Amino acid sequence: MPSYHAPTKDLQFVLHDLLQISGSDVPGYADLDTAFTAAIIEEAAKLSEGVLAPLNASGDVEGCRLENGVVYTPQGFKAAFDEVKAGGWNGLDIPEEFGGQNLPYVMGSAVGEIFVSANMALNMYQGLTHGAISAILAHGSEAQKATYLPKMVSLDWTGTMNLTEPHCGTDLGMMRTKAEPQDDGSYKITGQKIFISAGDHDLAENIIHLVLAKAPGGGEGTKGISLFIVPKVMVNDDGSLGARNAVSVGKIEEKMGIHGNATCVMNYDGATGYLIGDLHKGMRAMFTMMNEARIGVGLQGYAQAAVAYENALAYALDRLQGRDVTGAKNPDGPADPLIVHPDVRRMLMDQKSFVEGARALTLWGASLIDRAHRTGDKDADGLISLMTPVIKGFLTDKGFEMCVQAQQVYGGHGYIEEWGMSQFARDARIAMIYEGANGVQALDLVGRKLAAESGKPIMAFFAMVKDFLKESEDDPRLEGFLEPLKTASKDLQSAAMFFMERGMKSPNDALAGSTDFLHLFGHVCLGLMWARMAKAAYASLDDGESDRDFLDAKIATGRYYMARQLPATSMHLSRIKSGADTVMALGAAQF
Amino acid sequence: MPSYHAPTKDLQFVLHDLLQISGSDVPGYADLDTAFTAAIIEEAAKLSEGVLAPLNASGDVEGCRLENGVVYTPQGFKAAFDEVKAGGWNGLDIPEEFGGQNLPYVMGSAVGEIFVSANMALNMYQGLTHGAISAILAHGSEAQKATYLPKMVSLDWTGTMNLTEPHCGTDLGMMRTKAEPQDDGSYKITGQKIFISAGDHDLAENIIHLVLAKAPGGGEGTKGISLFIVPKVMVNDDGSLGARNAVSVGKIEEKMGIHGNATCVMNYDGATGYLIGDLHKGMRAMFTMMNEARIGVGLQGYAQAAVAYENALAYALDRLQGRDVTGAKNPDGPADPLIVHPDVRRMLMDQKSFVEGARALTLWGASLIDRAHRTGDKDADGLISLMTPVIKGFLTDKGFEMCVQAQQVYGGHGYIEEWGMSQFARDARIAMIYEGANGVQALDLVGRKLAAESGKPIMAFFAMVKDFLKESEDDPRLEGFLEPLKTASKDLQSAAMFFMERGMKSPNDALAGSTDFLHLFGHVCLGLMWARMAKAAYASLDDGESDRDFLDAKIATGRYYMARQLPATSMHLSRIKSGADTVMALGAAQF
Repeated sequence: MPSYHAPTKDLQFVLHDLLQISGSDVPGYADLDTAFTAAIIEEAAKLSEGVLAPLNASGDVEGCRLENGVVYTPQGFKAAFDEVKAGGWNGLDIPEEFGGQNLPYVMGSAVGEIFVSANMALNMYQGLTHGAISAILAHGSEAQKATYLPKMVSLDWTGTMNLTEPHCGTDLGMMRTKAEPQDDGSYKITGQKIFISAGDHDLAENIIHLVLAKAPGGGEGTKGISLFIVPKVMVNDDGSLGARNAVSVGKIEEKMGIHGNATCVMNYDGATGYLIGDLHKGMRAMFTMMNEARIGVGLQGYAQAAVAYENALAYALDRLQGRDVTGAKNPDGPADPLIVHPDVRRMLMDQKSFVEGARALTLWGASLIDRAHRTGDKDADGLISLMTPVIKGFLTDKGFEMCVQAQQVYGGHGYIEEWGMSQFARDARIAMIYEGANGVQALDLVGRKLAAESGKPIMAFFAMVKDFLKESEDDPRLEGFLEPLKTASKDLQSAAMFFMERGMKSPNDALAGSTDFLHLFGHVCLGLMWARMAKAAYASLDDGESDRDFLDAKIATGRYYMARQLPATSMHLSRIKSGADTVMALGAAQF
Repeated sequence: MPSYHAPTKDLQFVLHDLLQISGSDVPGYADLDTAFTAAIIEEAAKLSEGVLAPLNASGDVEGCRLENGVVYTPQGFKAAFDEVKAGGWNGLDIPEEFGGQNLPYVMGSAVGEIFVSANMALNMYQGLTHGAISAILAHGSEAQKATYLPKMVSLDWTGTMNLTEPHCGTDLGMMRTKAEPQDDGSYKITGQKIFISAGDHDLAENIIHLVLAKAPGGGEGTKGISLFIVPKVMVNDDGSLGARNAVSVGKIEEKMGIHGNATCVMNYDGATGYLIGDLHKGMRAMFTMMNEARIGVGLQGYAQAAVAYENALAYALDRLQGRDVTGAKNPDGPADPLIVHPDVRRMLMDQKSFVEGARALTLWGASLIDRAHRTGDKDADGLISLMTPVIKGFLTDKGFEMCVQAQQVYGGHGYIEEWGMSQFARDARIAMIYEGANGVQALDLVGRKLAAESGKPIMAFFAMVKDFLKESEDDPRLEGFLEPLKTASKDLQSAAMFFMERGMKSPNDALAGSTDFLHLFGHVCLGLMWARMAKAAYASLDDGESDRDFLDAKIATGRYYMARQLPATSMHLSRIKSGADTVMALGAAQF
């Protein structure tokens, strides 16, 4: 069975050495000194390593089952969920008035990585609830907040998001689920939703479904869509639970992975729903939830890679096979450990440099969200809005790739379920798809975010890279970082320029290069993170920080990323510049 | 459920327009006129589409089971296998004296693709048998050939390969399975082998295991290894079946995919075995089998991508979602089909251009094997020996990647097992691992094949590319092909040069770049195939060939590959040239 150990040291490095959170002017950050964040991370690690991770493989094998309309989660999930609940983990970054601890989102993300690495399927019950809480916080009435939030924050109740229908996922304008207004101000919701993660289960006494549906009078397409709260069990005025609502589970899908999470077909048969936010403005309300959820999914991508890497490394250190060509490293044993082989190293370094870079990017992104929310900083909001599709798309594409590579380190054992490496790849695969498939992320990036605010956020990003290069140019130790970052950033600018020049008259030229642009952007982001981390590591070394081995490894890992991963940017640029001609050349019948 | 239609038209294009097999001087090729190959391909297509493919998904769900020491394959497998048997398909390219039809290997490969696309797990029972037949043909005594081959060719008996043990896979020198010589000239084989595909099943009355084991007196490491025939059921002198041999199935592994094929732990408890080939030369005998098997695995990689692509295309043509940004293509419907979106096209073109290029490369490789075997052409032998790790490694890495991408076209439905796209990815995943994990292929390429015959094969490859460029330079229609091929080929030469310069004094510099070199080589091979196919397609157009749509599409698909895939070569070269420093920088304890 695979092991899991939370990367406490690296999380602390990112929070303090890189992001220097406790020195930040964002409200709440000053409290986050190293001792405090260490205490939180260590508590999360203890729960995750001891309780959640041991259920990951068994949950995969057992899966969820639907019996007489009731969904049962795998053995042990309920007891583990109760421990998460008892620890108050779901309220970590929720306002105190609703039972939370009001810590910044960056701490929620740091803890989130640990939970997701330990048991992604189980964590989703909590994760979906967190997303639903955010939507209610942002768009719910005071009465709705009072009714639902405390119970959801405590995880007595969980939440879901209901968007997809059998015939439409991305194109929600075709939605058929209907909301009919009732005399008492409520609505009757009728329709079928599919792919509803955590749609039903035995972990909580109630489930608060957030459902998109079309109410009369809103017009065609997405304009007519509104968002509704549809409780599984009706809530009485005094907060006690009443009768079952007319919502039921049609079936549980058989999936490639995340078997421990029930992916449900939900049938709404005139279920009672309550409008949340403005009528016919449901898409906007849903997007509040989606943006946070997308960063959470990017986090899932690298968190799965993180635990897969941990195990691949352990295997490479343990498994004896072949000899170091430069001379035996374990001469008294029958063979050397796998890690002596350069190609095995390459795989491990790919994984390590991705995971650590992705961790930095995600937590930096989370800190931008804090800044935007807690100080009203519009620039931070613009920047994280621009980078959200990159974090979601790049970190999940690469996260899956790294899980596959970690599996490869095991040779044949990687293909056998018993070793657990297959599960990491199978679980990570979904992150490339849900919350908007990665192609949709690329479309969002190129079609919407790049041109947002007349390009102000992307210009701010380039200026930030330029400033960093300028302020670092006198440090010869950063030589291996600055030049590759500069080149990669130029490639990104050149691609953005190409889109701007072509985009208007030939939108397909931009769209045909959208995924390459997302990956190019992702590499520049990770290159920037690595250059910053190297700088931070050198600064800590200069300060006489004791863990020199860790800091040296950090810098060496960064050098690997710059030398071995950043060369991808020129490939992506070449593809982008080849335009749409070869992509669109075939008639549909010629395929 | 996914569909399957054999690519009969494209196979014919590769065999005749590209390879011009019937005009070749290789013995047996002259018979392969278009009508004859079409007849064979259509028969294989009929069986595969009608009988094998419909069992693919059900075989995945049901899997194999071990009951009281007996392995049962999924429902329907036995009847389907009997049809394969009745058609004489296993003997297609086997000499007539053993019951085969003595057709060239290139036809075996063309048919093989169809069978593998239809049902990879089921086809493996036959595929392993074919490999075992090859080893016995090459190394068996006349008596052994007479005893085993006719029954194996007819599929009354099947075959296996037994290499891996729990503690060693790649590093066979650590093997523990023992062979003790007996007075009658036979051996007693004792040990445990794992990951034995088709190790046991209910499809045939006997199974001929080829087992590597250590016989006394051979010395340390791989030098002491010999190859043995170990029948599941003893064969009497008259050819009838006798008692059960002391070989049994320990368990069936639970795997990520190919559930329809039983991957067995095999226990040999003093089982009777017969030496095949020379004592202590077992590795050489096994490699005969391995090289053919490796090309067969490369074929599996692209064959899974082929069927995954077929389904992704069908879905993209059918599923209505969103609108073409340049104007609605299905204005009367609620939305346009997915295929209007450039990013969906990109995915489909990636798949199509890979699959068709890989098909050409594999069949060209098969034709080189025919040339080497049937005419004794040493150059052809050197070339295919060089390209074997490329065909195995590149086509399985990319084949899996393309299956994942085909799955992505389906959005959420791609993750649901019901649609079958997950199975293609899960099944394809093994091909990157078995018959030597792809890292081992890269090691074989860089450490062995590149320097073989003092570099003669690689020089011959470069000369071939150069000759092609030279003889094509006057054709302006090939402009978009020649320049990218030239650049990519230069990148490959530059990488090879880097290895030669560094390899002696710093072998890690070569090894650290081995996988990148394999991919770089793969892209150049596919680039060459595409340039040749474009030239062949133009020639057929000039000849007034009627299927202009097909030929135009072929050329357009090639242009896509050159513009969108070949830029990867410069990235691989950059990585290679960064050497081993960043790869090997960390101490094992620093990870």
